[in-house]
Amino acid sequence: MSTENYTVVIKVGGGEGIDPTMLSKEIAELTEAGTRVVLVHGGSHDTNVLAEALGYPAQTIKSPSGHESRRTDRKTLEIFMMAYCGSVNKTIVEDLRRHGVDSVGLSGIDAGIWVGQRKGAIRAIEDGRTVLIRDDLSGRVESVNGDFIEYLLSTGKVPVLTPPAVTPDGIAINVDADRAAAATAVAIGADELLLLSNVSGLYLDHHDPESLIEQVDADSLDEARSAAKGRMKNKVLAAEEALTGGVSRVVIGSAGVDRPIEYARVQNGGTVFSHGVTA
Amino acid sequence: MSTENYTVVIKVGGGEGIDPTMLSKEIAELTEAGTRVVLVHGGSHDTNVLAEALGYPAQTIKSPSGHESRRTDRKTLEIFMMAYCGSVNKTIVEDLRRHGVDSVGLSGIDAGIWVGQRKGAIRAIEDGRTVLIRDDLSGRVESVNGDFIEYLLSTGKVPVLTPPAVTPDGIAINVDADRAAAATAVAIGADELLLLSNVSGLYLDHHDPESLIEQVDADSLDEARSAAKGRMKNKVLAAEEALTGGVSRVVIGSAGVDRPIEYARVQNGGTVFSHGVTA
Repeated sequence: MSTENYTVVIKVGGGEGIDPTMLSKEIAELTEAGTRVVLVHGGSHDTNVLAEALGYPAQTIKSPSGHESRRTDRKTLEIFMMAYCGSVNKTIVEDLRRHGVDSVGLSGIDAGIWVGQRKGAIRAIEDGRTVLIRDDLSGRVESVNGDFIEYLLSTGKVPVLTPPAVTPDGIAINVDADRAAAATAVAIGADELLLLSNVSGLYLDHHDPESLIEQVDADSLDEARSAAKGRMKNKVLAAEEALTGGVSRVVIGSAGVDRPIEYARVQNGGTVFSHGVTA
Repeated sequence: MSTENYTVVIKVGGGEGIDPTMLSKEIAELTEAGTRVVLVHGGSHDTNVLAEALGYPAQTIKSPSGHESRRTDRKTLEIFMMAYCGSVNKTIVEDLRRHGVDSVGLSGIDAGIWVGQRKGAIRAIEDGRTVLIRDDLSGRVESVNGDFIEYLLSTGKVPVLTPPAVTPDGIAINVDADRAAAATAVAIGADELLLLSNVSGLYLDHHDPESLIEQVDADSLDEARSAAKGRMKNKVLAAEEALTGGVSRVVIGSAGVDRPIEYARVQNGGTVFSHGVTA
């Protein structure tokens, strides 16, 4: 594949045991070859550790449909910003510079890179009862400042992006980073989206490591949708949003292998979503 | 004074009791009037509080000449990044957006905004003896990516900058934010530099609140230099570096008054350094 102006958005998860700086060497190789790279990262494990150390441990919201998400009150959001925007983001940017990459770390708040609406009241199950949570600071990315990201790429930089996002009136909100990465890939017309984390792909039965779904056709996502459980639901949704928005290829793959980018891109590691798989 | 392309660099300190978001409204007014603003901030108090909460309290290095600075080992630097780049920076950026300002928060690491050399071994006094500290991660800004800051300003953004800086080979280093602000003002040809903190100016005798030095001529800085004690030394040095580099006016003023920017700029609050004071 030509690397001329080829653009790839890489999301690396923030789960336990994932060291996002292990992507630095491969990102340096890609940018040297002329590929334009945007890195999006999480930070959930670091946030949990920090929250625990500060005596304000992470809480989970369970929706009536069984979906789990982080409870984000203002104090949690402040701890979240320390971990995601301070610790993880700057450590990655520093390590990329050490590898000769001109990196720029930004949250979705900065320059309005990720703007979205905050959720209204959230229905949650607490002690078996349905309650309404009104002060949760979470939402979904609805627009991306693609011009600014394009400018960074056009001057040879690697943007390193992280939640939170921000509402149009300036309130920081927690958003799903997989879907934010997908929205970013669409906004800048990326060719490829890689979703790398401590799960190595989408499985028909996530208890059976032999049941990896290797290929998914963008036009028949039903099997993938129904196989996805828990956090994998957002990854499949992100893949779908990227494909619908014009991204040619999405890989849900492992961040925990040697050379994870090459593994996902070249060796078809994990689950590859693309158009016309069965053709 | 004309506000057309008029550029002001504002440094707000991170000492106890300073809330940097109280500048947001004035910054919004300035940018609306066409003034280009760069905000540089500290975060020392928040870092101390976080370090204490994490069981790794701040340590101070005392030089043989009596100068005190933060001991910055790697763990301290990581806590520092959480507070400066995560908590303080993003809180300011968010608040500026709430005031309608298109703000972009960046550390000196990002895009190589502040590049400098790390200090070699530091001589310090410990228990009355002189020791050499070899692993301290601190240094001084030697070059500023003015082009990137200019681009941000030219697209109507307010850059919100914070330490750490970075070495040419990609190691994050703690730097003095007053002097980093001065270097930034010089690099972008700013007209004015405001150094706002919880001290309201330079005093002939810092025990005597009546002894404020109101005006300092850029060409006769001896009195100012000898009056400066402790942290004020870096502010006077920053003022000197800015004036030498072409900045017309520097004010060392209070962040703790109503409308601190107007107070420092228009009402000559604090100590004003400029050329030809006695003329």
